[in-house]
Amino acid sequence: MIKSLPKIVPVILSGGSGTRLWPVSTPERPKQLLPLTADETMLQQTVKRVEGLVTVSVGRPIVVANAAHAGIIDTQIRLTGVEDYLVLLEPFGRNTAPAIALAALEAQGSDSMLVMPSDHTIADLPAFHTAIVRALALVADGWLITFGITPNAPETGYGYIKMGETCGDMIHEVVRFVEKPDAEHAADMLAEGNHAWNAGIFMFRADAYLAALERHQPAMLAAVKASLDRAERKDHHVAPDPQAFAACPSNSIDYAIMEREAQVACVPVNMGWSDVGSWDSLHSISARDEGNNAVRGEALLLGAQNCLVNSDGPRVTLVDVDDLIVVVSRGEVMILRRGESQKVRKVTEALKSAAPVPVA
Amino acid sequence: MIKSLPKIVPVILSGGSGTRLWPVSTPERPKQLLPLTADETMLQQTVKRVEGLVTVSVGRPIVVANAAHAGIIDTQIRLTGVEDYLVLLEPFGRNTAPAIALAALEAQGSDSMLVMPSDHTIADLPAFHTAIVRALALVADGWLITFGITPNAPETGYGYIKMGETCGDMIHEVVRFVEKPDAEHAADMLAEGNHAWNAGIFMFRADAYLAALERHQPAMLAAVKASLDRAERKDHHVAPDPQAFAACPSNSIDYAIMEREAQVACVPVNMGWSDVGSWDSLHSISARDEGNNAVRGEALLLGAQNCLVNSDGPRVTLVDVDDLIVVVSRGEVMILRRGESQKVRKVTEALKSAAPVPVA
Repeated sequence: MIKSLPKIVPVILSGGSGTRLWPVSTPERPKQLLPLTADETMLQQTVKRVEGLVTVSVGRPIVVANAAHAGIIDTQIRLTGVEDYLVLLEPFGRNTAPAIALAALEAQGSDSMLVMPSDHTIADLPAFHTAIVRALALVADGWLITFGITPNAPETGYGYIKMGETCGDMIHEVVRFVEKPDAEHAADMLAEGNHAWNAGIFMFRADAYLAALERHQPAMLAAVKASLDRAERKDHHVAPDPQAFAACPSNSIDYAIMEREAQVACVPVNMGWSDVGSWDSLHSISARDEGNNAVRGEALLLGAQNCLVNSDGPRVTLVDVDDLIVVVSRGEVMILRRGESQKVRKVTEALKSAAPVPVA
Repeated sequence: MIKSLPKIVPVILSGGSGTRLWPVSTPERPKQLLPLTADETMLQQTVKRVEGLVTVSVGRPIVVANAAHAGIIDTQIRLTGVEDYLVLLEPFGRNTAPAIALAALEAQGSDSMLVMPSDHTIADLPAFHTAIVRALALVADGWLITFGITPNAPETGYGYIKMGETCGDMIHEVVRFVEKPDAEHAADMLAEGNHAWNAGIFMFRADAYLAALERHQPAMLAAVKASLDRAERKDHHVAPDPQAFAACPSNSIDYAIMEREAQVACVPVNMGWSDVGSWDSLHSISARDEGNNAVRGEALLLGAQNCLVNSDGPRVTLVDVDDLIVVVSRGEVMILRRGESQKVRKVTEALKSAAPVPVA
């Protein structure tokens, strides 16, 4: 008796347009489309993240992306060797719940969708694969699964998931989702131990997600359906109708669905995950030399310690400096202290509000 | 009875090829040919340094330079508005004594030569002019005059001049020239008070200098004469014969002449002098903002303090960093700590000895 393998459709969300890695990341080239952590871009790494999965069959990946990035996404996916894929081109972002709804409507009814942000890194792929396989039984039963990152620090930059009773193989029912906490609350949750970081990685059957949308977000589901009914389709591309999509409410899957459903479970996983959300986090996940310096691009380090250098061309020479982040990109040179990379926001805000700076 | 004004011929030494201001200064573009301190280059500032001198007549300036810089020197001098000048093009450097000998042979016999390095800055020109005028009488009597900078710190990077008895209007006989001292010796001299920094600025009659050469450096004088006898002359340019000049010993005016002559006097002068010998010294003489930052080029400073930024194009953004020197030039970005700019030497030596650094 041959039993068919469960099928998983990778759904890759490429909607982010963060500027936290300015001057390298920009709205035109958000971080998932950049080779920040390796020779491949984070999108390419995400496309290949399901390679090596055993006991499951992997379906055609679906990428949901900003229509402006259609060309570069095609180029990058083809370079991974993946030939059969679909790109859903959003005319504008409506957050994650509608993006995943587009993908769910394109997937087969009972297929399992593995929803992954395109701009994270995962160092320990076998750990991720093991977690995926563990979740399959609950997914088949219609549960909505979120993969929760085992926390190793009282981070205030992530949402948390409070886990309750076991409902599967090392899987827990979700008690509640916790907004980004303050430092004290984060420390409490870390000490308590039954919490995980919400990494935005999900698994569920397409029909289970659509049924949840029908229950909680009927207007969203209707707008997404209408935008696909009138979509333009060509080669790998599906472009939902902008007018119909404009009527879709904007919301995250967490708020719109996960927090409202009953059959929601969390698979805690420790897999060397990073959202590469800042230059500091890039430093911490990068290979470093004996001086704890992480370098991409040409650099001459003479006595430098604990520095990050990221240059798209010019050689960066550091002499006896410590704890600096030095980024050279597209005619911009940015220098700030390691541990303070959230201050990139000061820069992007200053540039947004400032009159053009004259050249002296 | 009309008495003719004493005549001064400016002699500008442009032989330096220092790399202490790397990556901006290079052998092809040494610091005197760069607009480091102002919109004009230091060579141009030196050419104009005698403007405004009263009670003296200023003769045709003579620039002694590396032949490789002939074109750029012409361009820069013309931009100052000076039309009558002479450039002596050395085929290679032989230090200052032969360079000044070339100029002395081109000057009229009894003219006073005002010898000035081309890569210094002087903020208080009236003070310099006053010192020049004070020195005229001794110069006419055949003395060799050096202008000594009144020291304001125990600098170990300069030679010192020990001054003795008064021999003119606020002018002192030179007791001896002191090599670059160690810190203790420098502090002693500063405390003692009768010492000045040797800035390499001299004044003497051309024939007095040539007579001194005849006494102490006959081979040098002969070689320089021979090189000029066979010089190529065209427009503003005199190119001494390389073969004859090659026979000339290499020596500084200090060692070859000043330390050996008897009628040597020092005019102490306090005139906002700097040899701009390092990025630190450039910071200290530059206009600075309320955060004590000196900037040339485009920069966005958010909370930066005590920094120097010098960029030839790329915008430099500094966020809450202190005491950094950041230089961006010709595809190089160099960062070191303020107060440590002598470490540029570590960089130029590393680049000289290193195999080409591969681009990652």
